[in-house]
Amino acid sequence: MDRSVEVILSPSLRPLYDLEGKICVVIDVLRATTTVCAALDNGALSVIPVRDVEQALSLQKEGNLVGGERNGIKISEFDFGNSPKEYTPELIEHKKVVLTTTNGTKAIDLSSDAKEIFAASFANISALCAYLKSSDLDIVLFCAGWKNRVNLEDSLFAATVMHSLSDYCAPTGDSAQLLKQWYDGLDNNLTRGKILRNASHVHRFEKLGVTDLEYCITDDLHPVLPKLQNGELVDIHS
Amino acid sequence: MDRSVEVILSPSLRPLYDLEGKICVVIDVLRATTTVCAALDNGALSVIPVRDVEQALSLQKEGNLVGGERNGIKISEFDFGNSPKEYTPELIEHKKVVLTTTNGTKAIDLSSDAKEIFAASFANISALCAYLKSSDLDIVLFCAGWKNRVNLEDSLFAATVMHSLSDYCAPTGDSAQLLKQWYDGLDNNLTRGKILRNASHVHRFEKLGVTDLEYCITDDLHPVLPKLQNGELVDIHS
Repeated sequence: MDRSVEVILSPSLRPLYDLEGKICVVIDVLRATTTVCAALDNGALSVIPVRDVEQALSLQKEGNLVGGERNGIKISEFDFGNSPKEYTPELIEHKKVVLTTTNGTKAIDLSSDAKEIFAASFANISALCAYLKSSDLDIVLFCAGWKNRVNLEDSLFAATVMHSLSDYCAPTGDSAQLLKQWYDGLDNNLTRGKILRNASHVHRFEKLGVTDLEYCITDDLHPVLPKLQNGELVDIHS
Repeated sequence: MDRSVEVILSPSLRPLYDLEGKICVVIDVLRATTTVCAALDNGALSVIPVRDVEQALSLQKEGNLVGGERNGIKISEFDFGNSPKEYTPELIEHKKVVLTTTNGTKAIDLSSDAKEIFAASFANISALCAYLKSSDLDIVLFCAGWKNRVNLEDSLFAATVMHSLSDYCAPTGDSAQLLKQWYDGLDNNLTRGKILRNASHVHRFEKLGVTDLEYCITDDLHPVLPKLQNGELVDIHS
C-alpha cells in the first residue's frame, strides 16, 4: 500500500503534521461536522466556517443565517445553535449558513495547508469513504477534540474510517496505530453508544439536556460530501 | 472509587491538565525513564534531569557524570548515551548522574506543579504500582512521547499501570478511557514486542542499530522508585 492515513488526535498536535498535498478530513462528531452535513443535505447552498463569534455576527448583519455554540450552548444572537436537528429545509434551503463552534470550525481553520479539506462525521461516512477510496492522495484524519483534549467520539470515527480504508491506506504513525489496535480489539457486540458511554462529551450532553447523541452516531443520515472551496463548505457529492 | 487516574498522551497536551496536589508519573519507556531506573538500581546516588545539553555540559565541568541523547544519538562530549545498559555499577556507584534526553527530561520539567513526581517504566512497574496503591492522591500518568508525538510504548505502559490500579482509581477523561479500552481489547497472546512492532520508535531503533527494546519492555529489572526531590531523582524504595 503506497497511500498513508495519519491521525491528528487534537488541534494541539496539529503542528506536528505536514498536510501539504494531502486530503484533510476534519472530524467533530458532537456536533459541528454532523451539523454541516445536515445543513447541506437539507438544502443549504454552503456552510461558511468561521473561528470567531464576532466574525459570525458581522456576517449575520450582512444578511446571512448564523449558527453555532460556545461550550455547547447556543449564542443568544444566533439563528441556530449547534444541533443538526435545527437545520431544517424550511429554514435553510437555498441559503448560506455561517457556523462557529468551540472545536470544529477551529480545526477547519487549522487545516488550510491541505490540498483538499472535507468535513465528516457518521452522518456522511459512506460518501466520505467512497471518495477517499477513489482518490490517490494521502489522508490525514483530524479530530477536533474538545478544547484541545483528545475525545473518544472523534477518535472512534477516525478509527472507523481507517478500518473502512484498510485495503487502500496504511495507518501511519503511532496515533493511527493506537486507534487501529483499539478498533480491532473492540467487542463486536458493543454499540457505539456503549463505546462512548464514558466519553466526557456524552456526560456534558447529559448535563446540558442535549439529546443529539444517537443522531450524531448514526451512519449515513446525510450522504453529502462537504468540501472547503474558497472558504465555504459545499456539497460535491451530488 | 474516589481516586482518579488521568493520562497525558503528549507534552503538547500538558497545559490541559491540573497537576496540583496529584502524583505525576513521567513515562519515557524508550529510554530515559528506563535508564533512570537502571542508574539508581546500579548504585547512582541520584539522577539529575536537565533540559539542555549546555546545562548538562556545565554540570559535567563541575565533576558530574553526564548522560543522554538528542534524536536517539549520544552527545559526543557526554560520558554515557541513553542506553540503560551503559549505566553499570562499576561506572556510576556512589555518583550523581546528570541526564538530558529528547523527551523524558523535558516531561519531568513540565511536571513541576505536581505534589509528587516519579520516573517510571516497565523496569520498575511493580514498585511503582505498589506505591500508587498505597497513596491516597489522584494520579496523572504523563507520557513523554517523541517530540510531542503520541507514542505506542509510553501509552502501553500507562494502560498497563491503569489496569493494575483498576480496583483503586477510576480512569478519568477520554485519553484514559481510550487507553483502557485499547488495553482491555488487546489479544492476550500478543507480547509487548508484537503490540509495539509498528511503533515509530521501534523503527527508529532499528535504523540506529539500538538493541535495547527487549530490555526496556521487561518488567521489574530495576525495582527502584525514583522520586524527584530538590531537582534530583532519588530512589525512595530502599
